[in-house]
Amino acid sequence: MNAPVNFEGLEVGYDVPALPGMDEKDIQTPCLILDLDALERNIKKMGDYAKAHGMRHRSHGKMHKSVDVQKLQEKLGGAVGVCCQKVSEAEVFARGGIKDILVSNQVRDAQKIDRLARLPKFGSKIIVCVDDLANVADLSAAAQKHGTELGVFVEIDCGAGRCGVKTAQAVVDIAQAVEAAENLKFVGIQAYQGAMQHMDSYADRKAKLDAAIAQVAEAVDALKAVGITPELVSGGGTGSYYFESASGVYNELQCGSYAFMDADYGRILDENGQRIDRGEWENALFILTSVMSHAKADKAICDAGLKAQSVDSGLPVIYGRDDVKYIKCSDEHGVIEDTNGVLKVNDKLRLVPGHCDPTCNVHDWYVGVRNGKVETLWPVSARGKAY
Amino acid sequence: MNAPVNFEGLEVGYDVPALPGMDEKDIQTPCLILDLDALERNIKKMGDYAKAHGMRHRSHGKMHKSVDVQKLQEKLGGAVGVCCQKVSEAEVFARGGIKDILVSNQVRDAQKIDRLARLPKFGSKIIVCVDDLANVADLSAAAQKHGTELGVFVEIDCGAGRCGVKTAQAVVDIAQAVEAAENLKFVGIQAYQGAMQHMDSYADRKAKLDAAIAQVAEAVDALKAVGITPELVSGGGTGSYYFESASGVYNELQCGSYAFMDADYGRILDENGQRIDRGEWENALFILTSVMSHAKADKAICDAGLKAQSVDSGLPVIYGRDDVKYIKCSDEHGVIEDTNGVLKVNDKLRLVPGHCDPTCNVHDWYVGVRNGKVETLWPVSARGKAY
Repeated sequence: MNAPVNFEGLEVGYDVPALPGMDEKDIQTPCLILDLDALERNIKKMGDYAKAHGMRHRSHGKMHKSVDVQKLQEKLGGAVGVCCQKVSEAEVFARGGIKDILVSNQVRDAQKIDRLARLPKFGSKIIVCVDDLANVADLSAAAQKHGTELGVFVEIDCGAGRCGVKTAQAVVDIAQAVEAAENLKFVGIQAYQGAMQHMDSYADRKAKLDAAIAQVAEAVDALKAVGITPELVSGGGTGSYYFESASGVYNELQCGSYAFMDADYGRILDENGQRIDRGEWENALFILTSVMSHAKADKAICDAGLKAQSVDSGLPVIYGRDDVKYIKCSDEHGVIEDTNGVLKVNDKLRLVPGHCDPTCNVHDWYVGVRNGKVETLWPVSARGKAY
Repeated sequence: MNAPVNFEGLEVGYDVPALPGMDEKDIQTPCLILDLDALERNIKKMGDYAKAHGMRHRSHGKMHKSVDVQKLQEKLGGAVGVCCQKVSEAEVFARGGIKDILVSNQVRDAQKIDRLARLPKFGSKIIVCVDDLANVADLSAAAQKHGTELGVFVEIDCGAGRCGVKTAQAVVDIAQAVEAAENLKFVGIQAYQGAMQHMDSYADRKAKLDAAIAQVAEAVDALKAVGITPELVSGGGTGSYYFESASGVYNELQCGSYAFMDADYGRILDENGQRIDRGEWENALFILTSVMSHAKADKAICDAGLKAQSVDSGLPVIYGRDDVKYIKCSDEHGVIEDTNGVLKVNDKLRLVPGHCDPTCNVHDWYVGVRNGKVETLWPVSARGKAY
């Protein structure tokens, strides 16, 4: 039996939703597409911003989970390395050739610590976060076993309410323990205020970040008082990077979503009250979907449901259209309100997902498009790497 | 460099979360685990029910997306074949050796129709749903091109509000067109009432199904009036199968979630007002998660967030515990309220996911456990196959 299309052994449908060279209209839906022009402009813009403000940018790979996107961020945007959240993601980035990797999270399980400590053997610098003195000895023992060095950020909970210590004293205690431990190197502070990134109001975001900056500054001062100077103070996201950049305390950004954008981030407002997807950043990521049924006159059913996206931050928005609206999502179907019956079966639509990170995590491929043609296919290399 | 554990070339962490023979406590989290004893009991119970009620059971593969689980349903539960929702899923099941495959959905794109029509060459019977006369000629042409036969169900929208025709006349029109088309065979009716499955009240579910049954009966009568007898009338889910079985109209069930269960289905009530996860079905599917930070006394942070599950139908429930509660979910973290500080870092918990189908779709592997040991690893074979 012959496959309908075959390229480097990949068959459309069974393996991939599209192949390079294909017209955009022939892509099998639903799948993720990247507008490569928009993506490149976003990446260059953030890189220029960081450079102009004297900041390092360590792009967040938890969003795209792609070695290819990360390499583009390093090449076009001057990103100094990657952040990720899981040892399994770090394994993928290390094997993919990324040389500076921060696991911006705690690693506590004995096997995971062992896996992490052997990763520098792949030739990558590895940094991990710590929020508990008890973790220091375990990390040190594993690094000694493998003959490697692990960098350590002490994580401060500056408002996200997840991992991280709350007091400057706790930061100092852990940093001193790290300095005293074999095969560990204290590198700096992780302080990402995750809870404010999606607040619509610029003033509300600023108030939260001001508090976070004050907390981080206090910790830096306490470290300096005992003779420890953090090389890096790292944090910042798409909803806050200008605050960290102006802080005089942070010197490294960790933005992720800016590169792709999504509907939930798009709704937040800049200093002038303008949505950030109307000038600051462009939508580069879309779920391409097709109308597959229009048996009811006022409803079109499309093929992108819960298996094609995460709706934790709201339903997707149909890009560039105000005459039709995505109103309901079930496992494999999206219901589109089409009051005037303007859609036809097989019409294709671009959806802006509600939340890019967990949406990317359900797809195996990014289909890169430019000028109506499929230019490239990139695997979501760390997809499903949660462990 | 040596991998810490190696089995058939798979490395824990980089490729898989666990390996057969491993103690359950060593599984790398978060990942999906299946309690194999509970799974087998659920599968046998549904098989026995269908047999006792003279019903065929075509188990729904959109839930598990696994060739291995499907084969177990056929072996232990007498399932007659699989349903799935996408051509790409059907491709996986056909190549995996499943012999009777229903795509319980519309297929409209020209390339997808072509892919579907060549699938019978793998030795599987293929049935597809139609809700639009215009689709009949396209399916017929593709089947003729490939020299295959496609079975056709006419889909009725009996309350789900997605695909499907609403009137008996529309069913007759499409069935007659199918009967007249080359290389197509009219097999019967698809009538799944998807919108009532998760209603808590048994009486509310029954009222919705009574209406659906009346609608389907009318269509069957209309078909018989023009000399067409549907071989199969198919539908029914975990919240309704007893209604279809007693209907005298349906002869095939399409239950999926019963095998794994989830928190949202667990909350629905049986005829006696008892939750269906307290007797009717057992929880066989869990997200295994570990506590990774407890820097705040009353909050434990676990490693299962939005990348390990879908929260479209609510947050996960911690199995067998009422002293701790999963209260918040972000990309890679779950916040667990631990008012009395009973949890410690590295404690493992079993989470019952809110919604099994889209949760399974973010994982690559099922880790099958029995008596505290990993017995098997099954790939989520059709994971990500949405196109």
